[in-house]
Order: sequence, then C-alpha cells, then structure tokens
Amino acid sequence: MKKLVVVGLGLIGGSLARDLKLRMDYKVYGVDNNINHINKAIELGIIDEEGSLNDVADASVVIVAVPVNVMPEVIKKVLDKVGLETLVFDVGSVKNEICKAVEYHPNRKNFVAAHPLAGTEFSGPEAAILDLFDDKVNIICEADKTDWRILDNAISLFKKLNMHIKMMNPVEHDRHIAYVSHLSHVSSFMLGKTVLEIEKNEQAIFDMASTGFASTVRLAKSSSSTWTPIFLGNKENVLQSLKEYIKNLSEFKEMLENEDAEGLNKTMNNTNYIKKVLNGIEQNN
Amino acid sequence: MKKLVVVGLGLIGGSLARDLKLRMDYKVYGVDNNINHINKAIELGIIDEEGSLNDVADASVVIVAVPVNVMPEVIKKVLDKVGLETLVFDVGSVKNEICKAVEYHPNRKNFVAAHPLAGTEFSGPEAAILDLFDDKVNIICEADKTDWRILDNAISLFKKLNMHIKMMNPVEHDRHIAYVSHLSHVSSFMLGKTVLEIEKNEQAIFDMASTGFASTVRLAKSSSSTWTPIFLGNKENVLQSLKEYIKNLSEFKEMLENEDAEGLNKTMNNTNYIKKVLNGIEQNN
Repeated sequence: MKKLVVVGLGLIGGSLARDLKLRMDYKVYGVDNNINHINKAIELGIIDEEGSLNDVADASVVIVAVPVNVMPEVIKKVLDKVGLETLVFDVGSVKNEICKAVEYHPNRKNFVAAHPLAGTEFSGPEAAILDLFDDKVNIICEADKTDWRILDNAISLFKKLNMHIKMMNPVEHDRHIAYVSHLSHVSSFMLGKTVLEIEKNEQAIFDMASTGFASTVRLAKSSSSTWTPIFLGNKENVLQSLKEYIKNLSEFKEMLENEDAEGLNKTMNNTNYIKKVLNGIEQNN
Repeated sequence: MKKLVVVGLGLIGGSLARDLKLRMDYKVYGVDNNINHINKAIELGIIDEEGSLNDVADASVVIVAVPVNVMPEVIKKVLDKVGLETLVFDVGSVKNEICKAVEYHPNRKNFVAAHPLAGTEFSGPEAAILDLFDDKVNIICEADKTDWRILDNAISLFKKLNMHIKMMNPVEHDRHIAYVSHLSHVSSFMLGKTVLEIEKNEQAIFDMASTGFASTVRLAKSSSSTWTPIFLGNKENVLQSLKEYIKNLSEFKEMLENEDAEGLNKTMNNTNYIKKVLNGIEQNN
C-alpha cells in the first residue's frame, strides 16, 4: 500500500489525511511534535500510525502542514530525505518565504508549493473534517521548479480532492492573500477584542450575536499559534492593507461625526459592489 | 378575518407578513411608498392587497418596518389613527429616539417598541423569507408604557414566531446593539471598501473569498438606505465603539511593525474567549 506521510496533524493536515485515505487508499503516517495530536489522530482514524521523518524516503506523498514560521525548516528536512519519486507539498498561507527557502535545495524538483484555500476557525486533529477541499481553490506557486512527473502526481491528487488549481507567482500570492484573507482575520480578531472590552455584559453579546456579529467575528476563534506566524511572515502586505483599512474606518468615523448622511450612504452603496464580485462564480468559473 | 397592516415591505416587514399570515391567518394589507414593492409583495403572496394608513383603525395589528429615520413620524401617524385594541409595534434597530418620540402620544399604550434580532444582508420584498424569526431574540423596550392587554397580544404574536423575548431599557438597548451589531456592520463595510480599493484583481477576490473573506464581508452587502439612518440614529454609541476598534487595530499594527510575536499571540489568544461567549447557548438559554 502506498505511503502518505502527514507532518503536522492540525485542521488542514488532518483533513487532507482523512480525504486522501478514503479517496486514494493510502497508508497514512502522522508526524507531530505534540504527542496528544498523534494519539488523537490515531483514535479518530485520521492516521494509521505514528511516523517519523525517516518514513519520507519510501513515501509516495509527504504533506507538510505545520505553522508557516517552521515550514521552511521542516520542508528542507523532508527534502533532505525524499526518495526519487516522492511528492512533497506544503499548505502554507504565506508562499514567498517558503519558495525562497527551498529554491536551491538539491531536491527542489520534488516539491510543490501549494496553498489550498480552505479551512474553518477551528484547529487541531479534532477539527479535521471530510470533504473540506471539494470545490475550493488550490494555488500552486513556481510550478516550473517542480519536476513535471511530480507535478503531474500532485495535480492528480488535487483533482481527487476536487480542487480548482490556479498557478500564481509567490510574491503575487502573498499580496493577494494579505488583502483578501489575512486582513479579514485581523479585522475579525480586533472586532472580537473590541466587543469583549467594551461590552461587559456577556449575556447581551450572546443575545445579540444573531445580528451579524456571530459571522463577522467568526475568524476571531482561529488559533493564535497558526496566525501569529502568518501575519509576521506576510508583514509588509498585511501592514499595507491594515493601514488602508484604518484609514477607511477613520474616514467613516469622521463622516459619522459630521452627520454626513450623503457621504455615509455613498460609501456603503459603492461597497455593495462586493456582492457582484463574490457572485462572479457564474461568469468566471 | 383579522386585519394585519404592514407599513414598509422590506426584508423585515415582508418576512413578518409571510410568517404571520401563515401562522395566524390574517388578511394582510401592505403600505409602502414604493409602488414596485407593493406590486412585488402582492405577486409574491406576501400581502393580500395594498392598504393605507386608513386601514389602521380597524386593524388588529400594525407593524411599522420603515427605515429608522422616518420611524418616529410614521409611528405617530399610525397611533393617531389606531382603534382602541389595535397593537402597533415597530422593528427599529435604534430604540431610544423612537421611545422618546412617542412618549407622550395619547395612544402610547397601543405601542410596543420592539427589535427582532433577525435579518440577512439582503433587502426589499424579494428578500422576505419564512421562518426568519424562529429562535431569535426579540427585545421589547419600555413595556411598562404599553397597555397590559396590548402587550399580552404582542407577546402571543411573538410566541407564534417562536421568538425569545427580552425586556430592556432603550438607552441600554442602543448601547449594547451599537457594540455588538452596528460595529460589526461598520467593520464589514470598511473591509469590503478596503479590499475593493487595494485589490484591483476581482478574480483574485473571487478565488480567495473562501479563506474567511466571504463571511467577514457579508454584511457589506447590506442596504445603505437601511444602515445610514441606523448609524446616524445611534451616533454616539457607534462612534464610541468605532474609536475603540480603530485603537485596537492601530495597536495590532504597531505590534506587527515591531514584530512583537508575543504581543500578537497574546492578543489573539485572549480574543479566542469570544468562542466561549458565543457558545453560551447551553448555559444561558
């Protein structure tokens, strides 16, 4: 039976293991610094047994799904040990640093820099769910640096997950993802922080959550150990978007202070255009 | 057949009409300045026929579901014409101004100041849906100023909608709702604005929306003609929460600029407490 090694048994690594085991009939080895994650993943049937980096040599596929700050180091360790035909891919939300770190690795050609755009606000092996990746986008960076047979294997695997593949350069990826995804997380975390600070009545928060708060603050439940390295790893892009966000909020505040009904109305009305962009599915896909 | 008059055939007025017609067997009269709304509401079976404020005198129930800036004026006009036993309630998201406006009206006792905490980001009669209010909270303000028989009718009606009733003073209501609901809307609108401004690649927004952006920006699809009057009507509370929000975002920005991993981690980790508050359902309800 073909061997799949998953390094990092969190939400993404665990969910990939679940789907791939079922859809491609792998024997799954899990690697994680946290022994509780290993035990939980075995108990939940996410992995077949604990593995180690020594399992990499004869593995068909190795998935690296660790926090982005340790990603370069772990990927390099994995690449040091890969077999000739082993496919290694990561799932990191920041791509430029990772691509640069492995650029001159002798086994760079075994590696696919990937970012499956899927997830929930939960974390750890308990959060791993089936069918998480169906119909989601998977971004591949610097595909030209991967051996074409390895890349072909990766694409077959992503197709089994029913993902839509997009090629992107890592600098562009990091910019786009900061603007669209990372900024949303900052916005949501700080909304949660603000409401916890100013609204001391937790029952009122609970009672009123159905008015839009629950969905807007959802991302503030995300794991800080996942997100601290992401923000730091994409610092300049996140800062740029955050500055624009603060500027827009400050302008909104001024309009409200001045009771500028026309200005408020216009700015919200223009922003409704986001509806069209998000409904693009019919035209674009 | 008992007569229900709905003034304002948008998302909330229309959804109430749909449920109450089905669950309580009313003949429903719709009043709206916009003739397209009237026609659409008849076509969709939301109302039985167009009505006018003259229908108020022999109506069992009158619902006022217009934008909050015109709410005081419309409620007063309705109260001028009510029959002795007519229940009038509003659904406004800002309550203090409304309560003050009707405080000394001779028919104040026919009025229930209500705020059903339910909705979607859509608007107009097409957005009216069944079962919108089930299991949602309905806040009643200054119930002591309503005749007890009228109040009893209102409570029976809200029970038919399967709503949980909470009593609250209007000043407190406006403060809580600014912090929890109105701030979420500002946050989401400005997130949408920022992303539209800095991310010129609409395909990238579309492709990457599954990473948390779609849910965080959902409220930015809301109607500006509903939300401009709400923000203006609750100006001081919204401004206070907005200032705190901008302060927290600026502090986050500074931590990121300083690469303060510990600070970022701590602030996000503390904010994860929102999970517990939002899961309060088991303990609190």
